[in-house]
Amino acid sequence: MSGALPRAAVVLSGNELLDGRTRDTNGAFLSADLSARGVKVTSVLTVADDEERLTAALQYSLAAAPELLVVGGGLGTTHDDLTAACLARALGVSLAEDPAALGMVEERVRWVAERRHLDFDELFPLARRQASLPAGSTPVPPAGVAPGIAARRGPTRIYAYPGVPYEFEAMWLSTARGLRGEGFFPDVAVRVVRIFGVGELQVAPLLEAVPHDLLETGINVGRGEVTVRLRYRRGAPADAQAAAVVAALEAAAPVFSSDGRSVDDLIADGLRERGLTVAVAESCTGGLLGARLTERPGSSDYFLGGVISYASEVKMALLDVPAGMLAQYGAVSEEVAGAMATGARAAMGADYALAVSGVAGPGGGTAGKPVGLVYVACAGPRRMKVVRGLYPGDRASVRDYSIAAALHLLRRELAG
Amino acid sequence: MSGALPRAAVVLSGNELLDGRTRDTNGAFLSADLSARGVKVTSVLTVADDEERLTAALQYSLAAAPELLVVGGGLGTTHDDLTAACLARALGVSLAEDPAALGMVEERVRWVAERRHLDFDELFPLARRQASLPAGSTPVPPAGVAPGIAARRGPTRIYAYPGVPYEFEAMWLSTARGLRGEGFFPDVAVRVVRIFGVGELQVAPLLEAVPHDLLETGINVGRGEVTVRLRYRRGAPADAQAAAVVAALEAAAPVFSSDGRSVDDLIADGLRERGLTVAVAESCTGGLLGARLTERPGSSDYFLGGVISYASEVKMALLDVPAGMLAQYGAVSEEVAGAMATGARAAMGADYALAVSGVAGPGGGTAGKPVGLVYVACAGPRRMKVVRGLYPGDRASVRDYSIAAALHLLRRELAG
Repeated sequence: MSGALPRAAVVLSGNELLDGRTRDTNGAFLSADLSARGVKVTSVLTVADDEERLTAALQYSLAAAPELLVVGGGLGTTHDDLTAACLARALGVSLAEDPAALGMVEERVRWVAERRHLDFDELFPLARRQASLPAGSTPVPPAGVAPGIAARRGPTRIYAYPGVPYEFEAMWLSTARGLRGEGFFPDVAVRVVRIFGVGELQVAPLLEAVPHDLLETGINVGRGEVTVRLRYRRGAPADAQAAAVVAALEAAAPVFSSDGRSVDDLIADGLRERGLTVAVAESCTGGLLGARLTERPGSSDYFLGGVISYASEVKMALLDVPAGMLAQYGAVSEEVAGAMATGARAAMGADYALAVSGVAGPGGGTAGKPVGLVYVACAGPRRMKVVRGLYPGDRASVRDYSIAAALHLLRRELAG
Repeated sequence: MSGALPRAAVVLSGNELLDGRTRDTNGAFLSADLSARGVKVTSVLTVADDEERLTAALQYSLAAAPELLVVGGGLGTTHDDLTAACLARALGVSLAEDPAALGMVEERVRWVAERRHLDFDELFPLARRQASLPAGSTPVPPAGVAPGIAARRGPTRIYAYPGVPYEFEAMWLSTARGLRGEGFFPDVAVRVVRIFGVGELQVAPLLEAVPHDLLETGINVGRGEVTVRLRYRRGAPADAQAAAVVAALEAAAPVFSSDGRSVDDLIADGLRERGLTVAVAESCTGGLLGARLTERPGSSDYFLGGVISYASEVKMALLDVPAGMLAQYGAVSEEVAGAMATGARAAMGADYALAVSGVAGPGGGTAGKPVGLVYVACAGPRRMKVVRGLYPGDRASVRDYSIAAALHLLRRELAG
C-alpha cells in the first residue's frame, strides 16, 4: 500500500553535519513526524554548504517527484547560506527580494535589536538578504529571524526552513497544521508488535505466512528485540488484516507488546499500578541500567536506587556477597549475580532487585568465561531467577544487550 | 584548503532510518572518522530499501566522482537487502556468486550454527545470497555473517558494508587500515582545543583575532564544552599558524586540553598514572556518571563502584547522609551533595568520590529549587569541593550537563 501514501524527500544543508561536529536532529524529528502522519520518507540527503552540491541535491530530490520536499538549513545571513539561491537554480527561476519576506525580517530584527540593545540600522542590512526568495515562492513566517520558503514544482510542495532545531521544528509544525487543514495527510493507522527472545529469522516467516497486502510492514531488530510495524490506510479490510497479522504473531512468537508500549513502559506501568519498587546492582553495565530506569520523569515513584559494584570489595561491603562465593565461582557467575540481586533487594528494601554481572570486554575474557558472557538476576518477593546470556559485539553492544536482558527479566517476573 | 582534500560520499540504506524507528549511528561515526583522516564528506544520503531509489542514490553519489563512496546497509538475507543488486545496476554490470564470498559466508554460517546449536543445512541456503556480488568487485571479509563489497568506478573506490553498527564500524576500520597503507589519506593534522567554562560567543572573537587562512576551522558547542577544531595539510607555515592559534586560545580562554585528549581521557590518565581510585554517588543522574566512567575498557583499574541513591532512605542507609540534614536542607543542596560524596568515599574506600544531586525535571521544581538546579561534589584526600549549576533544556539535557560538571570537577581536583 506504500505506493498510495504521499512521499517526501528531505535535504539538510550544513558542513557541521558532515564532519562529525554535530549530530543531525532535524532529519530524525521530521522523519518520525512524517511517518506518524502517514507520509513515506524516501530519502534524507545531507549535503555540504556548496552551491554545486546543494543544487544537485535539490535536483536529485525533485527528480523523484515526491509530494513533499522539505529543506533544512542554509537560510541565514552568512555567505554559507545558499538555500534560496540553490533552490532558485534548481527551479530555473531568478532570486528576488520579496516585500512580504522583507516585512517579516524587518519586524524580527527590530524585536532582536530592542531585546538585546543593539543598533537596528547596523543589523538590518546584514539580515536583509534573508528576504530574497526564488521567484514565484512565498515566505513562511519565521520562528527566529529568517523566514522560510514555500514553493511548488509540479506535484511537489517545497518548504525550506532554517537549520536551528527549534526554528525548524516550530516552522514545520506550523506548515503541517496548514497541510492537515487541506487534507494533505492520509488517514493512516500504525500498529507496533514487539517481540523478545527470538531473532528476525524466526519472525519474518510468520509475517510472510499471513495476508498483508493492504499493509506496509517493517521488521526491525535492536537490543535483542524484534519489532514489527504495520502501517495502513484505515478501513475495514485493512483493519481486519492488521488484526489477523497481530494475532498470528502473538500465537507463534514471544510477543510482549502489541499496543505500542515499550518494555520500559510495561515495567513502569507494572510497578506503579501495584505500588511496587525496584533497585539495581550493576557490575559490567556500570550504572547504565539505573540510568535507563530513571530516564523517564516520575521514575522516583518506583525506582529506589542501586549499587554499582565494579570492585569485588564493593560487592562484599555493600551487597553482602560472601568472599568465599566470589573466590569459588568468580564475580561473573550465576551464584554471584543472584547474591548481588538478593543483597541489593535487602540493602534498599525494594520489592524487586535486578543484578547484572558479566564480561563486557574487550579484555578480561577466558575460555570458560568469554567476552559477552553475562548473568542477569532478578530477586523478587516470591523467587529469585537468573538468566545466562552470551552477547555479540563490542563493549557497548554487550552492555546494551545486558540492559535489555535485565529489563525483560523484570517484565516477565512482574507479569508471571 | 579543503578543495585539495579527497572527497567522500556516503549512502545509507534502510527504511528503519527514515520512519523514526532507528537513529543513524553509522553515518555519524563515518563522517567523524573520515574527517579526522583528512577526507571531506560532501554528502550523506539515507534512502529507503527500494530498488529504484537506492540505485538512483548510488548514481547521484557517483556522479560527483568522489574519491570514496561508502554504502551502509542492505547486505543481508531478506528481500529488502538490495545493495548488491543496486550497485550492480549503478555500475552497469551483472550480479554473480563470488567463490571467495561464498567461502566466507559458509565459514561464518558454520560458526553461528555451532554456537547457537542450529542446523547448518537449513541456514546456509538463506545466507547464500549474501555471496552474490557485482561482477568485477571483491568481497570484504565479514565482521558478522555478510561480506562487504569492494568495487571501483573511475576515480571512485566503492565499499559497501552491512548496516549493523558493530559490523559496519569494524569493516570500515579494516578497510581504512588498508587505505592508509596505500597512502590514500592526505597528510593532514587535526588539532582540537577544548574549553570548559565559557560560551561560543567568548571563544569566536579570540579565533578571529589571529591569522588562520591556512587552516580549516570549526567551533562546536556541546555538554558545556566549546571545541575548536583546526585541520590543515602539514607544512611549516600551517603548523606555525596552528600553534599560534592554540597559544592565543590558551592565553585567553579556560582551555583544558589542546593535545586531543577529552575530559574522560584526562581523568583516566590522571587516576591511573598515580594509582588513584574513584567512586560515585548519584541521584538525578541515576547511574549515568558511573556508566560514563566505565565506558572505556580497563576502567576497573581506577573505578571502584557507586551508589545510585535515588530515594532518601538509600542516601541514609548506604551513604550515611544524616536524616536531619536531609530534613533541614533537602536532598538537592550543597550539604547533601557533600555528604553523599563523603559517604561514597568512605563506603567504597576510594581516593576520590563524585556526587550529583539535582532537579532533572520536568516535575519537582520549586521557586527556590527550580528544574535544572544541580549540586556536584567531589570528596578527595585533601578537601571537599561542591559546585552549583543551573542547567537549561529537558531532563536528558540537565542530566548531560550534570555529568559534564562532575567530570570537570574531578579533572580540576586531580590537576590542582
